[in-house]
Amino acid sequence: MMAIKAGEQGWGVGPVRHGTMRDRNLALVLDQIVRHQRITRARLAEMTGFTKTTVSNLLAVLVDAGLVREGGILYEGERRGRPGTAVSVHGAGAAGLGLEINVDYLAACVVDLARRVRYRHVVAADHRGRPPEAVVESLARLAEEALGSASHQGLSVAGATVALPGLLDRERGFLRRAPNLGWSDVPVQKLLQEGLPELRLAVEYDNEANLAALGELWFGAGAQLGDFVHVSGEIGIGAGIVVGGNVFRGAHGFAGELGHIVVEPGGARCGCGARGCLEQMAGQEAILRAAGLDAVAVTSAASAGGSIAALVDRLAKGDDRARSAVRRAGKALGATLAAVVNLFDPDAIVLGGIFSPLAPWAKPSIEKALAKGAGTLRDVLPPLVVSELAGGAAVLGAAGSVASRVTADPALLLEE
Amino acid sequence: MMAIKAGEQGWGVGPVRHGTMRDRNLALVLDQIVRHQRITRARLAEMTGFTKTTVSNLLAVLVDAGLVREGGILYEGERRGRPGTAVSVHGAGAAGLGLEINVDYLAACVVDLARRVRYRHVVAADHRGRPPEAVVESLARLAEEALGSASHQGLSVAGATVALPGLLDRERGFLRRAPNLGWSDVPVQKLLQEGLPELRLAVEYDNEANLAALGELWFGAGAQLGDFVHVSGEIGIGAGIVVGGNVFRGAHGFAGELGHIVVEPGGARCGCGARGCLEQMAGQEAILRAAGLDAVAVTSAASAGGSIAALVDRLAKGDDRARSAVRRAGKALGATLAAVVNLFDPDAIVLGGIFSPLAPWAKPSIEKALAKGAGTLRDVLPPLVVSELAGGAAVLGAAGSVASRVTADPALLLEE
Repeated sequence: MMAIKAGEQGWGVGPVRHGTMRDRNLALVLDQIVRHQRITRARLAEMTGFTKTTVSNLLAVLVDAGLVREGGILYEGERRGRPGTAVSVHGAGAAGLGLEINVDYLAACVVDLARRVRYRHVVAADHRGRPPEAVVESLARLAEEALGSASHQGLSVAGATVALPGLLDRERGFLRRAPNLGWSDVPVQKLLQEGLPELRLAVEYDNEANLAALGELWFGAGAQLGDFVHVSGEIGIGAGIVVGGNVFRGAHGFAGELGHIVVEPGGARCGCGARGCLEQMAGQEAILRAAGLDAVAVTSAASAGGSIAALVDRLAKGDDRARSAVRRAGKALGATLAAVVNLFDPDAIVLGGIFSPLAPWAKPSIEKALAKGAGTLRDVLPPLVVSELAGGAAVLGAAGSVASRVTADPALLLEE
Repeated sequence: MMAIKAGEQGWGVGPVRHGTMRDRNLALVLDQIVRHQRITRARLAEMTGFTKTTVSNLLAVLVDAGLVREGGILYEGERRGRPGTAVSVHGAGAAGLGLEINVDYLAACVVDLARRVRYRHVVAADHRGRPPEAVVESLARLAEEALGSASHQGLSVAGATVALPGLLDRERGFLRRAPNLGWSDVPVQKLLQEGLPELRLAVEYDNEANLAALGELWFGAGAQLGDFVHVSGEIGIGAGIVVGGNVFRGAHGFAGELGHIVVEPGGARCGCGARGCLEQMAGQEAILRAAGLDAVAVTSAASAGGSIAALVDRLAKGDDRARSAVRRAGKALGATLAAVVNLFDPDAIVLGGIFSPLAPWAKPSIEKALAKGAGTLRDVLPPLVVSELAGGAAVLGAAGSVASRVTADPALLLEE
């Protein structure tokens, strides 16, 4: 095999991803079908550069695998008057199960191959200090319910991805640290493999901030934004950095730890060991405390997000203490985002998680602190876009990444 | 043409870089020759997957173009006893001219296709407030001298790259802002094209921090480091971020503006419009001022780096004021690098520019502040590697990038 280093100005010859040429070609054809939703064979041949015979042979494999189906007549645009048989993704062919363990809730959702959301469920629960085994057991029950609903809808769930709030060592299969859960060195791959229902594809897992950014890319505003940084604020604060449609992960997969950037040297001690981290100023608990809301009591009394709903209620009523708490958090977040802009130079910043419902009150102070910290080097600063997915982005990204795995390599589902 | 989006887990089908298949294959063969320095045809066929006939045809083109030459017998390793004729890069075939405009000096160097340094020259000069046209005129004289020396050595210089200390809009061909030079919206592409001696390839230019990182990658410690962040401290402070052997540039090419991260909110006003930027605490002038050395006087009296040499002299003699100035700068830099580690998660950090000669005194305080700011999330922090290239990295990177352009697409030199 060749071992060619990527050149400075381009990606050079990339890594070989697919076992055989046929596997790669199946992926190219399926990718076009997913993009177009409905497309004719003639147009598929045009888009991929394959002959019509090759397209037909590849389609036959995809139809056999249940991933694609044919039917209906399609007129392709005005300039191409000739009708053809439509090829489309078989929604029920392969669905993805997204799961999420977060500090104060669990979530599950099912997304089909056309990335339509078919099921969603969120359960509030305080996981701080609970053993990982017990939490995975609760997650398994949520997964069973989701699979039951999928099966009821005639969906074939191919695999699952789990979103986790911590630093992951995916090479060793360990969660290295989740300061807000109080977890360290958890053999998370083994726990998930053994604890969750078995599916055709092996269970995968990823950092919740990364998956939230992908959720925004696939189900939210992300596709229009170019390179963006997605801020996922929950009890912890993380950033998912999307560059060229991919998540930027760093050398060890620990990139985007926005919440542990120090904004107040010598400030409050953080679970990460440092002092004055952004999380201590702008994380959910810090904001609720400053606003005079007892976080734990509200969380356990209501559904996930209940405490934020209570805060939003006070904000809407003009409560001074609540407003000043949110302004203070916004100022700290904006100052940190100035560093993000100086280092990453994104096209846009997405305010996700709790910063989405808090945006009407937080955004002005975030913008002001960002502008102050970024100076006048740039003609324009990246816009702050408010996520419509809020806290739901990570579990959507998790489910979507299963669909993505299948689209990128449909041969994964042909083995049986 | 296909328009395939890169998949989440891989690079998918990359952009087509070369005009024809032959052009691409020429690049693959030349790349292998550059990597191996000396290699046989048989091994070239093995490494590229081409037949020996194809290899011979491609070699004939490269030899004709003067980029490659054959000669001498090579025994390829112990297991392959059979000798073959060696193919190697023709050092004189195509050289690159590197040029640099910085705040208080100009530099030029020539590097051959095998990335051997054949010429270097640095001239101290204070460019603050001088018109860009006049500075480019001085640079042209330096370039002429470099080309004279190259020609004297029998080298054919194919192109030039210029390192510039500012934010570049390479699409429009403008230098957007160079706060330390006091330049804004300079039509730098036009100025350089018209002002510099004409070569076979068009003149290119890049941010000095990016080129310093590439200089470190190609001529310094970088090749061993994986993904790294190179800190180039001069009057301004920048970072070049190397990910997978490429410079990370951001959405508009403005990534890595380390010097304008705020470390002391409300601190000294910076040329960028913000207050308390890292440059105001750890830039060359800030350190010299704090150390009691009058920056401008020393600079104009001595060669570039003369003021830093004077500082090093005082540090070596145990001067308290100098030592505390450097410790203070190190603390600010270390705190900023903690944010870099949290966001980028690099394998290593390289201390370049003035931080290289200052490292014996600055490194302990940089390390301490980095550890304090980064907390205990990670098992190990990226090591701080001291650059041996110091301030010379950017101009080396500039010259090397010409060699890189030729290696990535030798067909560029076949047109004539």
